[in-house]
Amino acid sequence: MTGSRASFGERLAAAIGAYGPLCVGIDPHPALLAEWGLGDDPRGLERFALTCVDALAGHVAVVKPQSAFFERHGSPGIAVLEKVLAGLAARTGPGSPATLSLLDVKRGDIGSTMDGYADAYLAVGAPLGADAVTVSPYLGFGSLASAIRTADGAGRGVFVLARTSNAEGVEVQLADRAGRSVAQGIVDAAAAANRDALAAAREQAQAGAAPPGGGSGLPAWGPVGVVVGATAQHGLDLSTLSGAVLAPGLGAQGATPADLAARFAGVRGVVLPSASRSVLAAGPNPAHVRAAAQALRDQLIAAQGPRH
Amino acid sequence: MTGSRASFGERLAAAIGAYGPLCVGIDPHPALLAEWGLGDDPRGLERFALTCVDALAGHVAVVKPQSAFFERHGSPGIAVLEKVLAGLAARTGPGSPATLSLLDVKRGDIGSTMDGYADAYLAVGAPLGADAVTVSPYLGFGSLASAIRTADGAGRGVFVLARTSNAEGVEVQLADRAGRSVAQGIVDAAAAANRDALAAAREQAQAGAAPPGGGSGLPAWGPVGVVVGATAQHGLDLSTLSGAVLAPGLGAQGATPADLAARFAGVRGVVLPSASRSVLAAGPNPAHVRAAAQALRDQLIAAQGPRH
Repeated sequence: MTGSRASFGERLAAAIGAYGPLCVGIDPHPALLAEWGLGDDPRGLERFALTCVDALAGHVAVVKPQSAFFERHGSPGIAVLEKVLAGLAARTGPGSPATLSLLDVKRGDIGSTMDGYADAYLAVGAPLGADAVTVSPYLGFGSLASAIRTADGAGRGVFVLARTSNAEGVEVQLADRAGRSVAQGIVDAAAAANRDALAAAREQAQAGAAPPGGGSGLPAWGPVGVVVGATAQHGLDLSTLSGAVLAPGLGAQGATPADLAARFAGVRGVVLPSASRSVLAAGPNPAHVRAAAQALRDQLIAAQGPRH
Repeated sequence: MTGSRASFGERLAAAIGAYGPLCVGIDPHPALLAEWGLGDDPRGLERFALTCVDALAGHVAVVKPQSAFFERHGSPGIAVLEKVLAGLAARTGPGSPATLSLLDVKRGDIGSTMDGYADAYLAVGAPLGADAVTVSPYLGFGSLASAIRTADGAGRGVFVLARTSNAEGVEVQLADRAGRSVAQGIVDAAAAANRDALAAAREQAQAGAAPPGGGSGLPAWGPVGVVVGATAQHGLDLSTLSGAVLAPGLGAQGATPADLAARFAGVRGVVLPSASRSVLAAGPNPAHVRAAAQALRDQLIAAQGPRH
């Protein structure tokens, strides 16, 4: 149901095509605010976050603000987050692809409560509208279905937590359900949701409802990505995903571009490595932040080798 | 590390002792705002939520605002949430026990990001400080450890999602890890965390660090509760928890007070049934909301029969 709006898959493909496969996190935690000479208050937060927007919008594919570091400043922090998301959206020029916003909120609930989160972040006109958000599936992948529909209808996406790199995650993510790990179950459910969304888009296109001038036509990736940590072996079969894999942990957390290329060689879809500290530590000069992001992006492309 | 502050367990025991075992949710979803004749905007939200505070503070043990329904109004919605939490805290008179706030946010992350959420909701001086919050353990119970420490140090608590009533939850919550369900693993980890916290409190008391006039002395319940849906058989062993079980689903969602009494007979700790719609539907007159809550509380006490 993407109507005349480009789908998330198309928009992500355009952003990665223009700027390379890199997501940069905006993680204004107290230590980083101090490093940049800023106060640990809403004013320092705003200065930090809008500097990141200036440095990165139009230069990297995806920017990922971490909601926790805005929430810890209360409602004034959320007002800054609104400015960050609006600032990223405003950079969408008609000539060049937009840098997408991926808001890291890890929300997850059921029924009308999950709808409430979708209203906040994913619906058309959402006050904290992002191009995608992270969601948490402890209540089951199925509990996220209506949020996925809302996202897809707005040309937006979700990234579902599947397998994280932290040691404590195994108790839940590697538990077994009918011979399959919980994490693999999430990946397979995401793949099925993407199949459904892509089939619906094909049907719509065949019915002549495709947007005029919609370019190459059909998206290759559905609206449901997964989050898989980059710093450890994930053990997942990602060969049917047809979506994006957000892979946090590049740089300061320990994964190298070569690790990424090896660990995600079997993905059907696209891998979006994410770095935060290793890029943000180059600040507060926005040109230095941008240069650090571009250097990392170039290393990622070099490590990928000839693909596609 | 509760210092001279009463622990969450003590505060919860005082609230339940004074007002009975009931948690009432503040769930201002769009349909309920309309039923109350209010607009689906920050002004309607504020009117709704502060009416609930007026109706319930000093009359029920715990009030549980649902964050999603505030987030969907953006930063002005979060400003209303701040007023709700401050309003509940301000009702703490020296003469009567406080109604506690339990903010339903289901946050969950790792490392410095989880610390950010703790700063937002649990630390002393947090801008959105609540007496307790719900947290989600998809990243492993251990990822919540520092938030639990922060909560305990501030006399606050956390309620960790364990087993929810929705059908989709089984894929994750009933997956098996070393012969035990994920949900049981969460309950057992919560029990261990409570044992540690209660042992630390005992040591402190023996060292003479107990607050002067601290009443009966040691808390029976630790700072870690679990969330277990009331509308279905949970299949959990809750006999070592030494904490609170938040049991949503009373009333409109289908669980009766008799169901509750039967399903949670084996709990070591305290069961806190939670109702939202069945109470809120009595509004907008605050006296009617209060009366609905008190009637439900009385049914819960009657269904419990003679205990303790």
